[in-house]
Amino acid sequence: MRMEPIVERVAERTGLPLNARTVERVLRALLGHHDFWEIVDAADEVVPIVAETIRVLDEQGWLRVEPHGIFLRESARETLEREWGLRPLPDFRCLACEGRGIDPLRLPSEGIETFMAIQAERPRAIIDYDQGYITPESTLARFAFAFMRGDIQGRRVLILGDDDLVSVAICLMGAPQEVVVVEIDRRLVEFLEYWANQMRWPLTVHQLDLSQPLPVSFLRAFDTFLTDPPESIAAFRAFVGRGLAALRGPGSAGYFGLTRREASLFKWHQVQRYLIEQGAVLTDVVQNFHAYVNWDYAPKTRAWRLAPVKSLPDKPWYRSSLYRIELLTEVVGEVDTVFDVHTFNDAEASTT
Amino acid sequence: MRMEPIVERVAERTGLPLNARTVERVLRALLGHHDFWEIVDAADEVVPIVAETIRVLDEQGWLRVEPHGIFLRESARETLEREWGLRPLPDFRCLACEGRGIDPLRLPSEGIETFMAIQAERPRAIIDYDQGYITPESTLARFAFAFMRGDIQGRRVLILGDDDLVSVAICLMGAPQEVVVVEIDRRLVEFLEYWANQMRWPLTVHQLDLSQPLPVSFLRAFDTFLTDPPESIAAFRAFVGRGLAALRGPGSAGYFGLTRREASLFKWHQVQRYLIEQGAVLTDVVQNFHAYVNWDYAPKTRAWRLAPVKSLPDKPWYRSSLYRIELLTEVVGEVDTVFDVHTFNDAEASTT
Repeated sequence: MRMEPIVERVAERTGLPLNARTVERVLRALLGHHDFWEIVDAADEVVPIVAETIRVLDEQGWLRVEPHGIFLRESARETLEREWGLRPLPDFRCLACEGRGIDPLRLPSEGIETFMAIQAERPRAIIDYDQGYITPESTLARFAFAFMRGDIQGRRVLILGDDDLVSVAICLMGAPQEVVVVEIDRRLVEFLEYWANQMRWPLTVHQLDLSQPLPVSFLRAFDTFLTDPPESIAAFRAFVGRGLAALRGPGSAGYFGLTRREASLFKWHQVQRYLIEQGAVLTDVVQNFHAYVNWDYAPKTRAWRLAPVKSLPDKPWYRSSLYRIELLTEVVGEVDTVFDVHTFNDAEASTT
Repeated sequence: MRMEPIVERVAERTGLPLNARTVERVLRALLGHHDFWEIVDAADEVVPIVAETIRVLDEQGWLRVEPHGIFLRESARETLEREWGLRPLPDFRCLACEGRGIDPLRLPSEGIETFMAIQAERPRAIIDYDQGYITPESTLARFAFAFMRGDIQGRRVLILGDDDLVSVAICLMGAPQEVVVVEIDRRLVEFLEYWANQMRWPLTVHQLDLSQPLPVSFLRAFDTFLTDPPESIAAFRAFVGRGLAALRGPGSAGYFGLTRREASLFKWHQVQRYLIEQGAVLTDVVQNFHAYVNWDYAPKTRAWRLAPVKSLPDKPWYRSSLYRIELLTEVVGEVDTVFDVHTFNDAEASTT
């Protein structure tokens, strides 16, 4: 059983645009639901596509349409789960606010505890690498979000800079196929390698400066990337642009943080235009999703010099938004551009 | 005291892009906070702009910078609150998920109760106007979201189609300067006019078919628009495009719902490209923010005809995302285009 013939058949019959990820979303929904309306809801795809996909699967003997619901046949379920590695999507929507937020405390408590224990031993942030990192709760929330969107389990995941330790959360709880981290800081590389060995995670770590190109073997090789770039347009292209170039193609997804503390809405507009032109659609923009741990080097920053009152912050004040993009076409991204690291800062920046 | 000289001075000294809304966000933050880092956090603007705005305000005698914080002078506070109508922003972030979601139950309980009582008497949805409407909790959440972003209190608000009754929530709890609703359905027009008279709200309602242009007096006249268009690109231009044309200019904001039940990510991409090209930035894209009340006319819809199993949904399955955009430049939008209502449907649609 293969995906492509289903995609083609559904496209032919509906005349609507779709890709393999579209059909995959319907298949995952079928793994967890039997009611047609619940399947549409879980798949997040248009009704005519969901209905036609079910019809094609029915014709090919993958499922039974019965008066009380739609049921995958046991053989199809086994293929999907064992051969294709698809599982129903987990649900971490916040129960208090009707799912408008994400609640990482719905993750397995054992995983949360192990993550908290590991991250407590992490190397401290240093100013050399613009390393202000997010709170462990924010890392868990970012992981939970990506997991829920179907971008972690069974996926090849690339992390460009991992001072937030999202690879640890992914390996502990996300059942990825493989995680690759590129990271400039020797201390973090060693920290992650230690835990990867200790825990036998499918995690490899490469020491790499992202002003330089990624290894050629990384191009078009990943399903998902995550990154948290410095806030200049050049840095955005170096981190997110390389992330885009590392994605397999249509249906692949990317995540990044973008703050308003160092990036005006004018810069946001430039970033969004770049993504749209690259053939990516913005599926999520969640304001102030991440809170940052106040960094030890605060008094060395431009923000400190600019502050009219010289008192250290006593609670999180630096937040960033979470963006998720999904590719609709083949992209170029940034393949071999070398960036001058000095362009990773600009006049809106203030924390280095 | 005027806004423009402050904007110009800050722009001159920082060399950074900003507009009156930028300075307004800093001023609102100053109304509620004294710690510099909290002010930056609440303002959601870049550190150099916030610092320079404070310096300019200090020079002009609006505030005092003291060792323990930054304090607006009483005279400045009075001007801001009485003459400019600015108040500190309310906070409805969900306490359970660290503010990643919005919790409308943090709205004043009396307001919620009155809203629930009024909406219980609303005219039912009819298929003629593609009226599936969102749950009252979703309306409250949308209102709370816009209120929290500073787009309701003291604003001139335009609502293009109000089967969701968001005008009722706004008038009950949002202290707007003025609310104007355009609505095609005579029953809703009368319902809203009845309550506007009864409660002496600053609300006017116009019966209007949005395939037709808005009255000329609506152009460039509003601070905020809210709408929930049918899902074709033509309908998007008719509703959101007219909303854009009705906005005053840079710093004005718009809200709309967009579902994935009737709009693929390919259509999302077209919508986003249109907005970016119009000079709008996407500040928020929150997936599945709104849940819809299952409509009585479900068996008359295309979705029903497409459904492989003919059973009525027994819980919400139709959701839509919330978009917020903010203008960075003057826009054109849709001024005098007349649309054929038949183009409000397309091949991805299924609920009419």
